Amino acid sequence: MPRIGHSRVVPNTRAPRIHLGPDHETALAGAVERGGGVLVPLADADAVVWAQGPDTFPAELPDSVRWVQLPSAGIESWLAAGLVDRRRIWTSAAGAYAGNVAEHATLLLLAGVRGLAEQARATSWRKAEFDTGVGTLRGATVAIVGCGGIGRAMIPLLTAFGAEVLAVTRSGIPVPGAAETVDATRTSEIWARADHFVIAAPATADTAHLVDGDTLAQMKPTSWIVNVARGVLIDTEALVGALRDNTIGGAALDVTDPEPLPAGHPLWTLPNALITPHIANPANGLTRALADHVAANVERFATEGRLLAVIDTERGY
Amino acid sequence: MPRIGHSRVVPNTRAPRIHLGPDHETALAGAVERGGGVLVPLADADAVVWAQGPDTFPAELPDSVRWVQLPSAGIESWLAAGLVDRRRIWTSAAGAYAGNVAEHATLLLLAGVRGLAEQARATSWRKAEFDTGVGTLRGATVAIVGCGGIGRAMIPLLTAFGAEVLAVTRSGIPVPGAAETVDATRTSEIWARADHFVIAAPATADTAHLVDGDTLAQMKPTSWIVNVARGVLIDTEALVGALRDNTIGGAALDVTDPEPLPAGHPLWTLPNALITPHIANPANGLTRALADHVAANVERFATEGRLLAVIDTERGY
Repeated sequence: MPRIGHSRVVPNTRAPRIHLGPDHETALAGAVERGGGVLVPLADADAVVWAQGPDTFPAELPDSVRWVQLPSAGIESWLAAGLVDRRRIWTSAAGAYAGNVAEHATLLLLAGVRGLAEQARATSWRKAEFDTGVGTLRGATVAIVGCGGIGRAMIPLLTAFGAEVLAVTRSGIPVPGAAETVDATRTSEIWARADHFVIAAPATADTAHLVDGDTLAQMKPTSWIVNVARGVLIDTEALVGALRDNTIGGAALDVTDPEPLPAGHPLWTLPNALITPHIANPANGLTRALADHVAANVERFATEGRLLAVIDTERGY
Repeated sequence: MPRIGHSRVVPNTRAPRIHLGPDHETALAGAVERGGGVLVPLADADAVVWAQGPDTFPAELPDSVRWVQLPSAGIESWLAAGLVDRRRIWTSAAGAYAGNVAEHATLLLLAGVRGLAEQARATSWRKAEFDTGVGTLRGATVAIVGCGGIGRAMIPLLTAFGAEVLAVTRSGIPVPGAAETVDATRTSEIWARADHFVIAAPATADTAHLVDGDTLAQMKPTSWIVNVARGVLIDTEALVGALRDNTIGGAALDVTDPEPLPAGHPLWTLPNALITPHIANPANGLTRALADHVAANVERFATEGRLLAVIDTERGY
């Protein structure tokens, strides 16, 4: 007797054979099965889901492997290792962690604007001193440089606080919810215009030292910069100079250059600098977020849909 | 010739005569006029707008004064001084500062949940140690105890982060946007139920030490408490004990008991405590917020509308 209200999905193709490596991680194994895949040894695989870094990745993949899912959003180390070939589709985890990183980036910006960096370190009641330094996101214009998954997840958060978003994207196609979107060739316009900056662009040859002495000099003395992308997007030496001279409000960084930031570095103790050690996307949240991403991509692979976060080897992300 | 699209408002009554004291503060004088009032000496006044504390308040008011607007949201010092009589209407500034305090309270909660209290004080890259302590507001239930103007302003913020609000109010009438509202007689139910707590209730005899050893013992080991109301709502000694024993996640306090918190107090240095020195509503934002509140109330007074934030002398807020 047929069940009512429950239609059976008949897949277009047989269940894809997925190799999960290097280890059998339970959450990811479940995700592969949830997405309609079957776990197989590498030699029999149509696709590979990889849960660790490039060091342990197989030197050769069988020709049968048409797709490789990598576990991170940033893929510089994979490109540097020369592993990402053009014989198959490679996908990153870009977007999988966007919500968590957006939450952290919003926290860093709020903390900066309201003076929490210095308040959190105080050991006495410095009300009169701190009071005048407390700002607000209400009415502020926040530029999101590289407004992809993280930036898009930030827009409803910043909007709830009464801020407006100025989005910078490669295409310049209007980002929903942003007050304005400009394409990356017009990035130079934003430094003097926005009140605060969130750096969320991929690390490429074009974006290295995107924030340098010139751009810092154009910012307002109350501007905060948040970086949740990669440390190399900011010229650290120029930033330390601007923070020491108080030519900007401050910087709240979850990523640094160098990283890890060495003990004794001025960014640890400058009162207008706030460092979190690359934990916007903490390991305790990784597995669940990655599992959801893997399940979605396996399902798309099974039904020959468009995969999420396909790596563009030309652009390098 | 009449202007098109601009109708003239004819007031029901003559312009109310307002005394502004103790000083002629420009922003507040402008607010009185914006609300339709005329500035006059105390002896001629229908109403008084007071910009400072009770110490300099006139010992006697003329019988003609039917309304007094006080400058703060909390009014304990005015009640203690015996100044709030029943011969006229008294209004506080409750609600005027709600948006700014809501922004700060949300920052404190996020900072706590994501481990920023300890991260902000680090002077080396303690990623492995901090990583596992990073939480998220997504999916969390946040109880707002005393869900008035500040709490209502927090609801869209917390909701944007994916949290649900459990509102506690005196009446128990459902608060728009809250997942659930309970009346204050059921407060005892929330301590074991919610993930985190925002204390935003007025300080009264009923609310003193609302958070004590018993209630702390019911909270989860990951629960954060934010206090943006008055220090006395939390039993400080019991809180320090819970923080030392790690029986709760932590406490982020903009108000303390005693206040100012003395140097050397354990709350300054406990890794799971975060103190801001009563700057949720900073002085630099006071004047504008109070001015808007005064203008709105003068206009309501002029048109015999219902005044905002009328003090209930029975309840004491």
